[in-house]
Formats: sequence, C-alpha cells, structure tokens
Amino acid sequence: MARRIRITIAYDGTEFHGWQVQPGLPTIQSVLEDIVAELEGKAVHVAGSGRTDAGVHALAQVAAFTLENPIPAENLQRAMNRLLPPAIRITACAEAEAGFHPRFDAIAKTYRYTVHRAPICPPFEWRYVHQYPYPLNETAMVAAADAFEGEHNFAAFAASDDRYEEERSMVRTIFSSSLVREGNHLIYNVRGSGFLKHMVRNIVGSLIEVGRGNVDEHGIRRFFAGDTGRKAGPTAPAKGLTMVSVEYAEG
Amino acid sequence: MARRIRITIAYDGTEFHGWQVQPGLPTIQSVLEDIVAELEGKAVHVAGSGRTDAGVHALAQVAAFTLENPIPAENLQRAMNRLLPPAIRITACAEAEAGFHPRFDAIAKTYRYTVHRAPICPPFEWRYVHQYPYPLNETAMVAAADAFEGEHNFAAFAASDDRYEEERSMVRTIFSSSLVREGNHLIYNVRGSGFLKHMVRNIVGSLIEVGRGNVDEHGIRRFFAGDTGRKAGPTAPAKGLTMVSVEYAEG
Repeated sequence: MARRIRITIAYDGTEFHGWQVQPGLPTIQSVLEDIVAELEGKAVHVAGSGRTDAGVHALAQVAAFTLENPIPAENLQRAMNRLLPPAIRITACAEAEAGFHPRFDAIAKTYRYTVHRAPICPPFEWRYVHQYPYPLNETAMVAAADAFEGEHNFAAFAASDDRYEEERSMVRTIFSSSLVREGNHLIYNVRGSGFLKHMVRNIVGSLIEVGRGNVDEHGIRRFFAGDTGRKAGPTAPAKGLTMVSVEYAEG
Repeated sequence: MARRIRITIAYDGTEFHGWQVQPGLPTIQSVLEDIVAELEGKAVHVAGSGRTDAGVHALAQVAAFTLENPIPAENLQRAMNRLLPPAIRITACAEAEAGFHPRFDAIAKTYRYTVHRAPICPPFEWRYVHQYPYPLNETAMVAAADAFEGEHNFAAFAASDDRYEEERSMVRTIFSSSLVREGNHLIYNVRGSGFLKHMVRNIVGSLIEVGRGNVDEHGIRRFFAGDTGRKAGPTAPAKGLTMVSVEYAEG
C-alpha cells in the first residue's frame, strides 16, 4: 500500500546546484530521488517545500514522497543517511497524511541571512556567510529591516526571471523581519507566508544599500507600491542564506 | 635587507594533504610558499611550527619566512589573504627576530580533538569532528585522559613510521590533558611541550578503547613503560583534530 513519507533535511548547499533537479548537475532533489529510487526499486518524485538556489543551505527543509516499500520510517531514515553524502542529512522521517504536500500545505517559512563584518573570515565559516567588511550604517539597516513586516507587493524583490507560475500574485505577508548584530555577524531573520525567487537575497541586498547610504527606508517602502518594473537589490550572494524552518498547520 | 616574518595561520585542512610540501599535491606549506614566492619574485621557504596530517585543521598554526621585499607587514597580510583560498587565512603577520624559528623556539602546543556523539552529524560539522555514536564509558575515558599528564615516554603513541629524526627522544611532557562533554561533543584538550607524529590521534584512539572497555587506565600507564614495540591506538581520524595554538617564550 502506498505510504506518504515526510522528511526533514539539513544540508550544506555549497557543492550543489540548488534544490531542483537539473539534468547532469548535482542537486539536493536529484540526490534524494536517486537514493529513494534505489530503496524503492523504481523512480520516485521527491517534492520539496520550496526551491533553494545553488549555494543556499538548509537547517530544516521539508520534503515528501510516496513509497510502496514497507520499511519502518526509522530504518528508512538510517538507510537514507547511510547512502547520502555527509553534506545532506535526514534529521526526521515519519508517516504523513496521504495528501500531504510540503509546498502547498506550508503556512510559514523562516530564513536567516548572515553577513560577516570582520576583515578576515574564518576558514570554517566562509561557506555560510557573505563577508562584507566595509563601513555600513547598521542602525539605518536595523530600522529598514522592520519596514518589510506586513502584507506587501514584493514584485520589486523578485528575480526578473521569476515566471514559474504565470500571473500569480506577488503579494506576500511577512510576519517578522529583523536585523541583529551578534559578534562579527550581522544576521537578518525573516519569517513569512511565502517567498518569491531571490526575495530574501534581494531584501538583504537592499538592506546593504541602505547601510551604504544609497537608499533610505522611504525608498524601500516605495518598492512596495506595485510592479513598476523597477527592481530592488542587488541580489546578495547565495552562500549567506539558510532556510531555517517550514511550518505546517499540524505538526 | 632580509626581514624575518612571523605569521599565524588558520585553516580548514579538509582539502589539503597536510602541512608539508609534497610534489604534485596541495598542501598548506606549498600554497603559502607559492604565494610568498609570487610576492618576493623568487622561491621562499616557509617554516612551520610542526606538520599537521592531511585533514587536520588549525586555528593558529605559526610559520616564518625571510623576505627582501619591504612591504609593510599589514599590507603583506592583506595581499596574502587576497591570494589564498578561503580555506586558509593569515590571522596575524608581524616582524620577528632574525633567528626566529617557529618549530625550535616553540615551548608549548595545544591541540583539540572533537568526537561527535549523536547518531546524526550536522552537515555543517562533519569536516571537523569524528562521529562516534556508539556506547562509550565516558566516565572511564575522563579518568584515563588525566593519566597522560606529566613526563612520559610516548613511543607507544607515535606513528610506526615516525622516523624523521633518527634516535631522538620519545619523551614528552604533557602540561594538561582533559576530556570534557559539551552537548553532543566529547572534546579532548591537550597542551604539551611537543608531540610525536600521530600522538594526539593515538591518544584519542586509546581513550576510545578505554570507553569501549577494551583497556583500562592501568593499561594506558603500561604503555609509558618504554618502547617495548607495542603500539597504543588505533589512530583516530584526522578530521577531528585541530591545532589550537603554539606558544613562544616571548609573544
């Protein structure tokens, strides 16, 4: 009997070309699909809660797939971790409702972006931070980060090639948006109903522009006026971004 | 006029074949020598405080070289960090006494070895820890770690091919040796006058044998009796080991 399996995945995205399957390139989804196919004996589609770009990391990405194999969830998790490279770990694995879909059922996602402010980036951190040791008005950035909270049209913060669903709304609700300094790290935390392609990286790129004095909080708010064709940004580097969690109505 | 330059180096050893130059293989020493040669316009020997094995990391390895180039130390540090891969960083760079030798002048070295005790090793940590999720009597290991303090003949803890200085003494003094549990990490910290090849990894391998119940503290002490040809061990994996610091009489 077909079972729906839900997994939580942590990964270091450095060596992968993002989440989504791309022919001939190592991606998180393709590595997972190859391994599940090996256990199931036939091709299996692994659906994720959302795509992550090449170089983006995850503490708790959520995915699901349908399996005939009766292997207990705990043994399935162990078997997957044995077959996966050490840069990808299944941190949870459980039976889910038959109709569970990690993307459509998600009610909130949280991302973290880390800017490293020191002149020397430790060799153990370079994969996970965007090093920016130049002067920034961090007080202005902290104030501007608050401006993203609420329901806004984020068209100006979407990638220009964000077209995978035609004519969908660019309106998203941000539940919390804050910038904090912790030691050498300037950390942007954002939790929202959903995110457009490159949205978090473009918000961070815009906050850095605020810090450099090239735009102020009012300038940021003008980007919410609607799709005028103007783009905020630039897009901050992928490696500073980590998907922290995905929330569902139940569990 | 020739100047003696002292540098402190942090590195992630994962992608390198250890410290020492080996023809055709990337090593920390060869990467540094190539970069200093580029700045000096001729070959320069970079002497380190000690070799680290392939896969071993450093928070503060110390090295020195002699330069004719009059570039200020601060600019030299910046230039080197610009040319080095992100896995190697020069964290300090200064003029030293003409006769300074990072190996012969060292009076103490500190190493740290991390054993990861959880069944799942986070993808952001696997390069820096030895994962050992199986049962261990950690209380017995903590007690046995103390036994290494003092002056002992460490021949049984040296690599069997440790022959780079013929007929030298295998006696070393360990100033402190302790094992502590911090969350999922079982951390061995050791500070001593000097270390033989593989010595820290063989101490950790022996402590794990104590934890497994295969040898006790008395068995460990019997290894100090002298070079009977018996070897302690096994050698714990390189990636859990980090050179933490090197101390000198002055500075």
